[in-house]
Amino acid sequence: MPEDLLAHKPQRRRFLRIATAMTGALAGCSDSGAKKDAAATMEETEPSLLGKIASPYGERAKFEKAKRSTRESKTPAAGSSGTPLQDTYGIITPSSLHFERHHSGVPEIDPAKHTLLIHGMVERPLVLSVADIKRMPSMSRIHFVECSGNSGGEWSGKGGPDPQRSHGLASCSEWTGVLLSTLLAEAGVKKEAKWLLAEGADACKMGRSVPIEKAMADAMVVYGQNGEAIRPEQGYPLRLLLPGWEGNINVKWLHRIHLADQPFYTKDETSKYTDLMADGKARIFTWEMDAKSVITAPCGGQKLEGKGFREISGLAWSGRGRIEKVEVSTDGGKTWAAAQLQEPRYPKAFTRFRLPWTWDGSDAVLSSRAIDETGYVQPSRQALIDVRGTNSQYHCNSIKAWKVAADGSVTNVEA
Amino acid sequence: MPEDLLAHKPQRRRFLRIATAMTGALAGCSDSGAKKDAAATMEETEPSLLGKIASPYGERAKFEKAKRSTRESKTPAAGSSGTPLQDTYGIITPSSLHFERHHSGVPEIDPAKHTLLIHGMVERPLVLSVADIKRMPSMSRIHFVECSGNSGGEWSGKGGPDPQRSHGLASCSEWTGVLLSTLLAEAGVKKEAKWLLAEGADACKMGRSVPIEKAMADAMVVYGQNGEAIRPEQGYPLRLLLPGWEGNINVKWLHRIHLADQPFYTKDETSKYTDLMADGKARIFTWEMDAKSVITAPCGGQKLEGKGFREISGLAWSGRGRIEKVEVSTDGGKTWAAAQLQEPRYPKAFTRFRLPWTWDGSDAVLSSRAIDETGYVQPSRQALIDVRGTNSQYHCNSIKAWKVAADGSVTNVEA
Repeated sequence: MPEDLLAHKPQRRRFLRIATAMTGALAGCSDSGAKKDAAATMEETEPSLLGKIASPYGERAKFEKAKRSTRESKTPAAGSSGTPLQDTYGIITPSSLHFERHHSGVPEIDPAKHTLLIHGMVERPLVLSVADIKRMPSMSRIHFVECSGNSGGEWSGKGGPDPQRSHGLASCSEWTGVLLSTLLAEAGVKKEAKWLLAEGADACKMGRSVPIEKAMADAMVVYGQNGEAIRPEQGYPLRLLLPGWEGNINVKWLHRIHLADQPFYTKDETSKYTDLMADGKARIFTWEMDAKSVITAPCGGQKLEGKGFREISGLAWSGRGRIEKVEVSTDGGKTWAAAQLQEPRYPKAFTRFRLPWTWDGSDAVLSSRAIDETGYVQPSRQALIDVRGTNSQYHCNSIKAWKVAADGSVTNVEA
Repeated sequence: MPEDLLAHKPQRRRFLRIATAMTGALAGCSDSGAKKDAAATMEETEPSLLGKIASPYGERAKFEKAKRSTRESKTPAAGSSGTPLQDTYGIITPSSLHFERHHSGVPEIDPAKHTLLIHGMVERPLVLSVADIKRMPSMSRIHFVECSGNSGGEWSGKGGPDPQRSHGLASCSEWTGVLLSTLLAEAGVKKEAKWLLAEGADACKMGRSVPIEKAMADAMVVYGQNGEAIRPEQGYPLRLLLPGWEGNINVKWLHRIHLADQPFYTKDETSKYTDLMADGKARIFTWEMDAKSVITAPCGGQKLEGKGFREISGLAWSGRGRIEKVEVSTDGGKTWAAAQLQEPRYPKAFTRFRLPWTWDGSDAVLSSRAIDETGYVQPSRQALIDVRGTNSQYHCNSIKAWKVAADGSVTNVEA
């Protein structure tokens, strides 16, 4: 006898009665009879006319309303929008819902005119067209990108009221492009080159310094996202992808790579994207995104309709490799159970976790903690503050909790 | 010294001169200086104004024109459209470009009103809402779907002029939903039930018979596709997914499952979707899609710009499991080389293969053959005909070849 997944259904008995009557009328498996009865029962909800014809480029159903969070600003070109994680499935983020963070808005770039300059401490400076890059050996990898300011509001203890507003500056895509090491081999990196500047073609020429070790390890210059061209908001036509590293350094609209023997100390790695500690000193070059997770169902902003079975589901990721384990608590952290992890688990990618749960109708506090392949365990907010204080808005990866009240409403728990 | 990936570049020497001059002017790695010079060199191609602000739901770049193939018809609701495989990257097909095959068009279904009836030889007939199904234990899997009529034109020997028209009725997505076995366990399948009818809510009530073994093995009822709700063209809000089986039996707009002790012999498994052999007999219930592959670059419809390095890339898949090997020939099948396979390789999913190639400017014939984990080797067209004749339009999985002419044009080779 399977678990009763449908005990919650208030009209279960009525459904059974209808369906049993139908089955009775259908002894002998007459298909045409079954069709007639089923049609009679369900006719009010079923279309009977011919539907829309095939189309060149499809759109989502008009009933689907999930959208990125945007907000009013006096400087909207320096803005962001968050992925509605609670409305996504699996590990792929739909490109139309991938989070955004722009410093000068989204430039419109004609790929036929765009070039990538590789110069500085190289043997053979290069100017590459997008077509040049697409001829080269390519690869596809599934990786998350996360803004280091994601969950910054969690430092306050008040926190975001739903996954979109607490964790929505993280998304995951299948990226396709060329290994940066392939391009650098063509240019011939000089021995003394230890860093490179990656610069975008947006109005502010967003630039970041990248150590040569990361450039040679797994960095990519990508032109594909989820099977088609990378989206304008993600850097069309070329983006630097540094798997596992904070979003800002994954420079979008990439047009220049400058090799040098020292970092460039750009605005966005000095006045921004450094972590101010309690003692007034700032950490710099804190690139890796630590292991993190969030429950996306049930979650803040939702209302549970009745007691009974439901699945707890969420996302976990680590900039340091593979997610090895996710533990889920339904009692505010007193006890933890190992969640099921969706296979295969990619390193530096979203991992979907799931745990069966039957809600008994009383108060419950749901939380998750991720453990990555380095053995690192996602910490509590207090544990983070003990080490880093509360001056920084960046790199908050504390455990997130949602409270389920007896009336079924789910809200953020102040940590 | 790396392979010279850029030997093809006609202006390579000019690029080198410009870039070398710039590097010379930048001795000492002055970042601001480098910025100024790069900006001067590239100003005509770079936007300098603030770009677009963040948006609720993004769109692809206006420069991207890839589209599904549609065609004129007197009965357009019974039509199809193909994926432009030559314009896709990686293994995920963008949902907007997933192939279509409709028998009565795409119905518009309100998910709040849609139900799935499970009845017939079950202990507890059920009527499930979409919300009921979303509460249940879920899973995500990457699988291809392929129309059994895909590549039907190849039987003639003339074949499609590009991958979209020869192989475009195949696409691959991350699907999320519930195992059908979970739903059937709730309903309680009676011992005598050996088959089920899956029926759609489109105007023609498209229906197919599914053996209970497949239903219990890996069949899913899916509501998610590539991170968001399944698209209307793919069965919104619910689709039956039978991994590896011909597209038609993956019933879209699923609204009814009827358990029985025999198949239902519906129109679409008798007058259609059977394979007429040379002797006049027809094969029925030929569900599995055999191993297949196609080179998507370089491919028919393209023109190579000059000799030199370029990557050969393509897609392989098998309805019987994982792709174990793909071999590529550039000399019309005289010799074969093992291509690189993109990891991880999912069973019953697209696998991207790649082979480095340097075109010497002479005639070349490019082809690929897939080998799956059962050891099955994708056959030549003649080998298929020897066994099955040429009466059927279905299940053609022969090796596809593209001819590169000395002028760089690439065309279909008549096999």
